[in-house]
Amino acid sequence: MLHYARPLARLISELEKLPGIGPKSAQRMAYHILRMPLSEARNLAAAISDARETIRFCSECFNFSEQEVCETCRDPRRSSATICVVAEPRDMIAIEKTNEFHGRYHVLHGVIAPQDGVMPDQLRIKELLARLSRCETTEVIVATNPTVEGEATALYLARLLKPTGIKVTRLAHGLPLGADLDYADQATIISALQYRREL
Amino acid sequence: MLHYARPLARLISELEKLPGIGPKSAQRMAYHILRMPLSEARNLAAAISDARETIRFCSECFNFSEQEVCETCRDPRRSSATICVVAEPRDMIAIEKTNEFHGRYHVLHGVIAPQDGVMPDQLRIKELLARLSRCETTEVIVATNPTVEGEATALYLARLLKPTGIKVTRLAHGLPLGADLDYADQATIISALQYRREL
Repeated sequence: MLHYARPLARLISELEKLPGIGPKSAQRMAYHILRMPLSEARNLAAAISDARETIRFCSECFNFSEQEVCETCRDPRRSSATICVVAEPRDMIAIEKTNEFHGRYHVLHGVIAPQDGVMPDQLRIKELLARLSRCETTEVIVATNPTVEGEATALYLARLLKPTGIKVTRLAHGLPLGADLDYADQATIISALQYRREL
Repeated sequence: MLHYARPLARLISELEKLPGIGPKSAQRMAYHILRMPLSEARNLAAAISDARETIRFCSECFNFSEQEVCETCRDPRRSSATICVVAEPRDMIAIEKTNEFHGRYHVLHGVIAPQDGVMPDQLRIKELLARLSRCETTEVIVATNPTVEGEATALYLARLLKPTGIKVTRLAHGLPLGADLDYADQATIISALQYRREL
């Protein structure tokens, strides 16, 4: 039985730890790395350790940031009147791509999921409360995903913020634009009916 | 428009260079790396640069190797009477997993594909000839994939080795075991008919 050369075996096993990378993709990536020019392989390695070493959480919104306070939080054109709460940094990117939101963000780093052991105190909820107490925020948009956990987290935040008088809103649910009713899942159709608008 | 923090953007762009990694998977992997313990991120980075720096081609078979001559080529229980020629190191691993082949290997590092600019002199064919002239090899099994390029490479080698008197064989084509005729592609069925065996 043939074994991989040791450094190759180690590389494959490290790559397999990445999300969505199975043994076959890890092997393919490893062979690709072995064939890269040395400088490119070094760039990749340096990008990994540099990113991990220099990136921290923004002390305001908890997005990943190079500085103590991230670019979005330092942007003077943005208003703190509206804070959009997202589960993950990638959700913030998805909303920013629309160019439609000019308030600030807050990243929870997860959603409440007791079955997976994620309780409210493991999310950046305390930090959100502290932030709301110092900012002139009038509306919190909860932009968690329309899943059981996303909904539960939104409801939890709505209840928690009730005494503050801050308006808590939720992204609309319904049929995605361009969707075909015939192919939409039942839960989406039920939502679309339930949240129907008067024209 | 929100930008990624610089070291994060760089990490994503380096990861996107890997085969099969699109923007979404690169983003997912990068976020995962940012959340790894520092030591794990450093291990991954070190595995990449170590593998690239220490692994070279075996001077005999051109498989990836830590030493000048790889483990398989140093194994005294293997015979040079039969050399199995493969396109890529991963094909060697696939055959080794069967535990059925006890000869030696030779890795071409590609197949002849003029449309992609891969000509015979870019493959390890000269090195195969040199090796055959010093070893007591009686059979070369060409185990390239059953594709147009794999076939062309096999035929090229067969013609090239004709004057040496060494027997050149090819892996059998036909229906894979457990296959369903109804689902097999036409080319496979044609091969299976053409290479039918008498029972």
